[in-house]
Amino acid sequence: MTSDMPLPQVDFRTDPAQYRHWRLECAGPVATLTMDVAEQGGLVPGYDLKLNSYDLGVDIELYDAVQRLRFEHPEVRAVVLTSGKDKVFSAGANIRMLAAAPHPWKVNFCKFTNETRNGIEDATASSGQTYLAALNGTASGGGYELALACEHIMLVDDRSSAVSLPELPLLGVLPGTGGLTRVTDKRHVRRDLADYFATKSEGIGGKKAVAWRLVDEAVPRGQWAETVAQRAEELAAQSTRPVGPGAKGIELTPLAKDRTGSQIDYTHVSARLDRDRRVAEITVRGPDGSAPGSIEQVHEQGAGFWTLAMTRELDDLILDLRTNELELGTWVLRTGGGAEQVLAFDQMLLDHRDDWLASEILLYLKRTLKRLDVTSRSLLALIEPGSCFTGSLLELALAADRSYMLAGVFEETDPEAEPAALTVGPANLGPLPMGNGLTRLQTRFLGDPDALAAAEKRAGGPIQAEDAERLGLVTFAPDDIDWDEEVRIAVEERASFSPDALTGLEANYRFAGPETLETKIFGRLTAWQNWIFYRPNASGPDGALRRYGTGQRADFDRKRV
Amino acid sequence: MTSDMPLPQVDFRTDPAQYRHWRLECAGPVATLTMDVAEQGGLVPGYDLKLNSYDLGVDIELYDAVQRLRFEHPEVRAVVLTSGKDKVFSAGANIRMLAAAPHPWKVNFCKFTNETRNGIEDATASSGQTYLAALNGTASGGGYELALACEHIMLVDDRSSAVSLPELPLLGVLPGTGGLTRVTDKRHVRRDLADYFATKSEGIGGKKAVAWRLVDEAVPRGQWAETVAQRAEELAAQSTRPVGPGAKGIELTPLAKDRTGSQIDYTHVSARLDRDRRVAEITVRGPDGSAPGSIEQVHEQGAGFWTLAMTRELDDLILDLRTNELELGTWVLRTGGGAEQVLAFDQMLLDHRDDWLASEILLYLKRTLKRLDVTSRSLLALIEPGSCFTGSLLELALAADRSYMLAGVFEETDPEAEPAALTVGPANLGPLPMGNGLTRLQTRFLGDPDALAAAEKRAGGPIQAEDAERLGLVTFAPDDIDWDEEVRIAVEERASFSPDALTGLEANYRFAGPETLETKIFGRLTAWQNWIFYRPNASGPDGALRRYGTGQRADFDRKRV
Repeated sequence: MTSDMPLPQVDFRTDPAQYRHWRLECAGPVATLTMDVAEQGGLVPGYDLKLNSYDLGVDIELYDAVQRLRFEHPEVRAVVLTSGKDKVFSAGANIRMLAAAPHPWKVNFCKFTNETRNGIEDATASSGQTYLAALNGTASGGGYELALACEHIMLVDDRSSAVSLPELPLLGVLPGTGGLTRVTDKRHVRRDLADYFATKSEGIGGKKAVAWRLVDEAVPRGQWAETVAQRAEELAAQSTRPVGPGAKGIELTPLAKDRTGSQIDYTHVSARLDRDRRVAEITVRGPDGSAPGSIEQVHEQGAGFWTLAMTRELDDLILDLRTNELELGTWVLRTGGGAEQVLAFDQMLLDHRDDWLASEILLYLKRTLKRLDVTSRSLLALIEPGSCFTGSLLELALAADRSYMLAGVFEETDPEAEPAALTVGPANLGPLPMGNGLTRLQTRFLGDPDALAAAEKRAGGPIQAEDAERLGLVTFAPDDIDWDEEVRIAVEERASFSPDALTGLEANYRFAGPETLETKIFGRLTAWQNWIFYRPNASGPDGALRRYGTGQRADFDRKRV
Repeated sequence: MTSDMPLPQVDFRTDPAQYRHWRLECAGPVATLTMDVAEQGGLVPGYDLKLNSYDLGVDIELYDAVQRLRFEHPEVRAVVLTSGKDKVFSAGANIRMLAAAPHPWKVNFCKFTNETRNGIEDATASSGQTYLAALNGTASGGGYELALACEHIMLVDDRSSAVSLPELPLLGVLPGTGGLTRVTDKRHVRRDLADYFATKSEGIGGKKAVAWRLVDEAVPRGQWAETVAQRAEELAAQSTRPVGPGAKGIELTPLAKDRTGSQIDYTHVSARLDRDRRVAEITVRGPDGSAPGSIEQVHEQGAGFWTLAMTRELDDLILDLRTNELELGTWVLRTGGGAEQVLAFDQMLLDHRDDWLASEILLYLKRTLKRLDVTSRSLLALIEPGSCFTGSLLELALAADRSYMLAGVFEETDPEAEPAALTVGPANLGPLPMGNGLTRLQTRFLGDPDALAAAEKRAGGPIQAEDAERLGLVTFAPDDIDWDEEVRIAVEERASFSPDALTGLEANYRFAGPETLETKIFGRLTAWQNWIFYRPNASGPDGALRRYGTGQRADFDRKRV
């Protein structure tokens, strides 16, 4: 097997009827998500998904299930994550897949997997859907890392089941989906014990796993089902999920999507793929009509409600471009529509944050914007007449590495247009924090409280280019005469730089300020893993990842770097 | 030029009489450190150090000068860092050197350079020696990053001088010595402006550099000397350096060091280099006699005072092994000596923290232990009878990835020995924080305040193995029967793992908890830079770093990862 693994065009859309690897069962306040991976169901030919090991396809289903639980099953307050196999929870990411995959596939796979685990933590923390890992057998590597994303970890105590992070001793790589960070920073395993644990490929089980804080409880097999059920009920009872009796979910209906080699169209979002310039030109459009007059109408509109529909489309587009279009290194972000309408939709959600659906929509938008933040593409926002960088949509410009705003109008093509304006709204002042825990405005004005206050003070009204530049809300505000040239140079220049150096630059600049579990995972841990993945000691012909299972030992360059 | 650059055995010991690249002049409270790099003075043949570009040799002198200022020139309260060249401050790290250097050399060079910049910031923040960057010409890349480590940056305003970070556009790598982190997190340059700045190879000067916060002031050439002098006086006047009139420095006398291919010996520190096992066995010995009775005697002893002497030796050893012994992947740390004496030396320093020398010695020990924390070697502490893991020396065990403490004695070889004991002292409770701002004990017991309190409560008295293990102060406490086997397996296992994966594992585990500028630089920024350095887009035959100056453009793999 070589790294010429044939890479498919990946589609992230699925639904429970199509699942091959997971079962989702809801029973009142408790749902059970059972991992039962189909060995022959790999996304790419060339490997078997033995022992509940997973590849991107398995994780796409998990992501879908976690999302549907939040929108389609509002009554669920605790989710039991368990395995349908006998004596094994999950062997983690499939090793043969990893060994065969080219570097960008590995990195993209880990990123999406990380985002899904973060989404599980967000469901527990923000949504009152608390995840419980019921490890009915050994959880290794990514299998244990999945458990680490859960609030409570139960391990069957049967003298053979264990949790482990065998990546270092067996594969010469790191646990790549947050394991190292969560062990010390979330579960507070002592760092020297954590060190020992990560070198012990057979793992640790039973009482020692509890004493070392690797799991929360070890339960004999005889009491397993009963204890898991009891714990799930307890967690459900403690949930603060704001759902009244008889709450009815909304259906996440199939996304309408037209995709060709040069264009991707949804209802509110579209992208033109310009391969010559290595650019994706993305446009997000505001609502077509006015906001519903009541939260009941939001429920009635369901997946058709603009904010939710737009977010789902943007989410799918980010994943599609990230995975399938590696050479489109710059994303140009535009918006269109009416500022008043976007503000009204935002306001409807913000006025009803105690309504489960309004809350879920905001949380989903938050997660999707975070996905943008960790995307390894240069993001340029273009703010032109007719654009709608307002409230929730202004976040796109604030997420961008740079923004250009036209001062005045395009004199030749549309002299009568209204000049571009952007609007800071309540959605920019708190409900959509980045992974570092700050709003994008706070991150932008880090250490400059006066500038932050000045920008926040202008909330609610349109801000034109000169003002926006003076307030620091946009990077540059060229006029009609300079616009084409400045934008062209910015885009062409970006396409001429080293893609690797851009990824590193952006990963550093985008997360100024405080660090969190999330930023540590995407910053520190991911960066080290990328380096290790790329080094011959892991991925060379004699590297540990490639030699695993061949009976041959890896041949390492012994120099410590 | 290929990456077969001949690598010298590097000696980090130097003194002002030997400097080839720097001039150090002290005039009362203001010192001037002038960079005037000898073009032909490269540490390795094959490149010229044009335009005040630097290599490791230049930085070794800078490190020495910064150290000597603190110990030999206590009267200095402001340090002007400037250039002896006309119209150029510094072109940064020498590109031909970087292009030719093998990967570990690049990484080690950046790490040492980072540590020296951090030391400059520590002098400003902790020591009242405030650094002022007087950029009398363009400061590019590492040259500007050196300025970023200073408290105040002045740039001559002459329409040609600028500051710049041209690494990304010219070389396809990152500014590798803290630039990206300091621009946003220290100087609070807005991230979109910072993005633009890092793509603009010619840099930014004059008023715009001030408006964007890249420098603090732009001064016309006509007023340059006068304004720099005035600013230096102001900074000196604001300094809180605890130095009375007539304070006399101590001389950092030459370090006595014996080095062979298998052994390095200083007075209090020694290391046996075991190439077969890929281990350096390091022993640090406590004081020979009792602590001086007064702070005046500490001044009299000067560089002979045990804590300072031991720290200098340890510092030199860390640098020597890190640079010259890449394949010794595990450092086994032992100590010897009397606990009471170490506690007394610690106490002498802690009782006189308002004395400049006592303060400097503690700060230097702090920096040296931080150097250990960021060292990419596995650290195992062995706590045996006769050892002296007490107070300041206990930090070595707390810095280790794991520690083994013998329960009881070696029955066959020394049955009458006193069983090993370790002692928590005041030095462990605050004065020696890690880069994350926490003590090593706090980091160890992150999220476990009860365990921290229990350990702190035992401060002052000896703690034997069973107790130490129960308190979580050591990882394992095997008895005589298991000791040899357990330790042997730990060492052999470590040597069998992928060196890269160990580096990544340790870099993640060692910095649990809060992040700071320092941990971001060594964690996030360094990890990305390592990855980028290793990728063909930078270091391949067609990469930007290798092609720089050849007239040929780099040929990039365009995939964004």
